[in-house]
Amino acid sequence: MGEQRPFGELITYKDALNTVMEITPLMDETEYVSLSDSVGRVLAEDVKSDISVPPFARAAMDGFAVKADDTYGAGKFDPNNLEVVGNIHAGESPDLEIEKGKCTQIATGAPMPEGADAVVKVENTEIDDEWMVQIYEPVHPGQNVSPRGEDIEEGEVVLKKDEFLTSAKIGALAAMGKEKVKVYRKPRICIIPTGDEVVPSGDELKPGQIYDVNSYTLTSMILQNGGEPTKADIVHDTIEGLKEEIKKKAGSFDMVLFSGGSSVGDKDLVVDAIRSIGEVIFHGVKLKPGKPTLFGRVDGTLVIGMPGYPTSCLNTAQQLIRPAIRKMARLPPPAERTKEAILAKRIVSSLGRQQYMTVKLDGDKAHPVYKQSGAITSMAQADGYFEIPENVELVDKGQKITVTFF
Amino acid sequence: MGEQRPFGELITYKDALNTVMEITPLMDETEYVSLSDSVGRVLAEDVKSDISVPPFARAAMDGFAVKADDTYGAGKFDPNNLEVVGNIHAGESPDLEIEKGKCTQIATGAPMPEGADAVVKVENTEIDDEWMVQIYEPVHPGQNVSPRGEDIEEGEVVLKKDEFLTSAKIGALAAMGKEKVKVYRKPRICIIPTGDEVVPSGDELKPGQIYDVNSYTLTSMILQNGGEPTKADIVHDTIEGLKEEIKKKAGSFDMVLFSGGSSVGDKDLVVDAIRSIGEVIFHGVKLKPGKPTLFGRVDGTLVIGMPGYPTSCLNTAQQLIRPAIRKMARLPPPAERTKEAILAKRIVSSLGRQQYMTVKLDGDKAHPVYKQSGAITSMAQADGYFEIPENVELVDKGQKITVTFF
Repeated sequence: MGEQRPFGELITYKDALNTVMEITPLMDETEYVSLSDSVGRVLAEDVKSDISVPPFARAAMDGFAVKADDTYGAGKFDPNNLEVVGNIHAGESPDLEIEKGKCTQIATGAPMPEGADAVVKVENTEIDDEWMVQIYEPVHPGQNVSPRGEDIEEGEVVLKKDEFLTSAKIGALAAMGKEKVKVYRKPRICIIPTGDEVVPSGDELKPGQIYDVNSYTLTSMILQNGGEPTKADIVHDTIEGLKEEIKKKAGSFDMVLFSGGSSVGDKDLVVDAIRSIGEVIFHGVKLKPGKPTLFGRVDGTLVIGMPGYPTSCLNTAQQLIRPAIRKMARLPPPAERTKEAILAKRIVSSLGRQQYMTVKLDGDKAHPVYKQSGAITSMAQADGYFEIPENVELVDKGQKITVTFF
Repeated sequence: MGEQRPFGELITYKDALNTVMEITPLMDETEYVSLSDSVGRVLAEDVKSDISVPPFARAAMDGFAVKADDTYGAGKFDPNNLEVVGNIHAGESPDLEIEKGKCTQIATGAPMPEGADAVVKVENTEIDDEWMVQIYEPVHPGQNVSPRGEDIEEGEVVLKKDEFLTSAKIGALAAMGKEKVKVYRKPRICIIPTGDEVVPSGDELKPGQIYDVNSYTLTSMILQNGGEPTKADIVHDTIEGLKEEIKKKAGSFDMVLFSGGSSVGDKDLVVDAIRSIGEVIFHGVKLKPGKPTLFGRVDGTLVIGMPGYPTSCLNTAQQLIRPAIRKMARLPPPAERTKEAILAKRIVSSLGRQQYMTVKLDGDKAHPVYKQSGAITSMAQADGYFEIPENVELVDKGQKITVTFF
């Protein structure tokens, strides 16, 4: 039979994923970002508060700051009368002390004056013209007051290293007055398009040429999963040039993706190049689409040969590269939108390969969208996909499936 | 009783959400972005292809381009012999025609030469030194060939206006050679912090002052939901100054958020300002946390008074502002990560208000995290929240709940 370089034994998707998760290193380099740019990043240090939040005891209601003692026995038809000696607004620092029988008007958020230990809500009072207020309900000490440090105590570790920065956690950082925050650097990922027929979008196509698809799908997937993509020039090269290119990129990026060039054929230099200057960890996965995927390592950096067909490349990106990038970036599992649906048509699957079947939703019905191998429109015109395990050969019409939206 | 400006009748969360969705306009302005920046944006035009994809019939396998006719009758022990007249690589434009009895070697992705109508896979052949190849299996016309336009036909509308750009759709745009794409402009949202006690992070706190939290939580929420946030200076102002500020911002932004100043109190100028130059649509929602939320409109722009307490502000942002921004930006529902869990402690809720209760997960157990009203740490140190409907007063220990991760 003709010359070819066959895949070795294909490994199962599960084994491939386990291997990828095992060999993918965690990002250790850090950087500072401003609070406004920190959403979706991962903390690289414990964050301790230098201040108490609130930094002072403050009124939790609009009303009158009083000695609770002075309100005891007050009732709707038998108010206690107190002298009003001031009015404290939020942002002010009161320079007065409340004595027995006296009080001040106070706004929500304003600091409690010395001597006062509670706030009577404005609705339970009536103020007279002569700076006297009638108190209609008693309060207990501490009522309607937020004590200093109620939310955060000075010196408290509020957020821990490796926490994922959500809006709420950013809120806590803001409350402590942090302006910048130390986070892990984003994994830098280099995409190297391969294939002599491939030209970048915007160029004019010459006969025999097609547009580069995979660099763009990979770029967007990387952006959405906490990585920093860099598109390298398309490689049209010899094995020597390729080896040099890999060495160079492996030295300055955290991951290198070849977007093509890993299928079995006489121009597949990537696998030879990786093997000669590093190690091939696996080549060929029982994944559909996505079989001709190669994971290797050069100088400690993951160098990955993605399948050339756009759908295979994108599915491999979602099922193997995305988990790797997210692990490296220390991100939690991705949020995904799913929907239960009914399969509208029977599907015969590839026994022995974990398959991802694209579907278009019509209400609760999921219609398989399949053109031919590699057709990007079979993914672009689908709403999402569902998973068919390796050991399932047939999914019947009417079966309940879980669709994950793209 | 004391002077105050009470909320009107509180409206239910459901009514508030319906009203918000009804009055929020859709973005109509558009802009062009490069393909690499287009993920997560929304198409503002139908996209028709100027080319066929593939632009030429091409080999779908490595092997030999043949006339199918010439392979009939071939078998494992009885090969057909064909003369090899060339070798076509991907990216080349073959200038030869295949005649009867002849063939060319061809690589996956390379254009089919004139006269050939099928490809025999390399594994089913054996090449001789003398430019003769033995064919071990017959092929039918079209076998292992991707015809021109198989994926996309020239003139075909591949993507439609209002489609959300995922990696797969970006792949389709790349396949068509599009360099830029017309999308809706992101909604521009102005955040105006209010409160005389509030200072920006990084500043030194003077007595009576606290750090601004809400601008940062709102900024991150807006960024994650397709909006473009702009933080305005903190307003310490008179009603006249405030009216002028609102007019100005309403003219140049798509939405204006006041991050505080909508509770009932004597310094609440925002509601008065909006009422005097526009309309208050509702003020006060049966939502916990988040009651003192105000939706208004000035010169056609949504002007929203957010609650001042950080947790109330953030919950209102998630439950009312996020849907509004996403509607405006024409985005699909957000992807969320959820988990079924068992409530670890009985919770007494506020009958008559839709409540969002923060929890921390410990395996399958969800422990309520509640400090006091407004404590940002009750959200920052929680993993997520679950929803308690308006008409539920009690959620028992052991009950199954769905936790939405922050």
